[in-house]
Amino acid sequence: MLEKTNQVNLLFDFYAMLLKGKQREYLELYYLDDLSLGEIAEMHEVSRQAVYDHIKRAEKQLFEYEEKLQLLVRHERRQAVYQEMAGLVDELQESEARDKLKTLLHMLSEME
Amino acid sequence: MLEKTNQVNLLFDFYAMLLKGKQREYLELYYLDDLSLGEIAEMHEVSRQAVYDHIKRAEKQLFEYEEKLQLLVRHERRQAVYQEMAGLVDELQESEARDKLKTLLHMLSEME
Repeated sequence: MLEKTNQVNLLFDFYAMLLKGKQREYLELYYLDDLSLGEIAEMHEVSRQAVYDHIKRAEKQLFEYEEKLQLLVRHERRQAVYQEMAGLVDELQESEARDKLKTLLHMLSEME
Repeated sequence: MLEKTNQVNLLFDFYAMLLKGKQREYLELYYLDDLSLGEIAEMHEVSRQAVYDHIKRAEKQLFEYEEKLQLLVRHERRQAVYQEMAGLVDELQESEARDKLKTLLHMLSEME
């Protein structure tokens, strides 16, 4: 369960903007804010089942988006390369180039 | 017009997978294969207006996806950083690190 929670959280970072109103809202309350289905239902004055259905649909959508666009998997691949580059850059003797490359690598990470 | 064509082509690369059947198909024929509306209509035995409507909707969708996910703009920002890094790496005196960093930068570009 924890693994799924982590994965949904990561996918949510990439695809939240593509989810529709209620789906996005309930998913955020459930996974990011860690509310229970019952709490969300009470807060929104809807049935627990309605909340559950929206969340299940939203989860499914996130995994479908990832299947189509692979933003998470591509992000992770880039991160691995940045890390490998950072290791090499740290060892450079040429300090000016090293510092500039470090700054640029840092920029790349921030842009992710 | 040429600028719009280029932009639609670029956006298509990123978001084609999110477009639905006919929208994706007609957009591809029109922009990538450079067929006319009339030719696509004839090929699919539908009205020219129907083809036009699908294409307009598809274009709108591409721009909406970009507004939400910014995949194209982020891709271009990364490319600019890769290029700046490549310039620095090329000048490195430490040949082993230089070659490894070049390979990794090349990998990053290929992953885009």
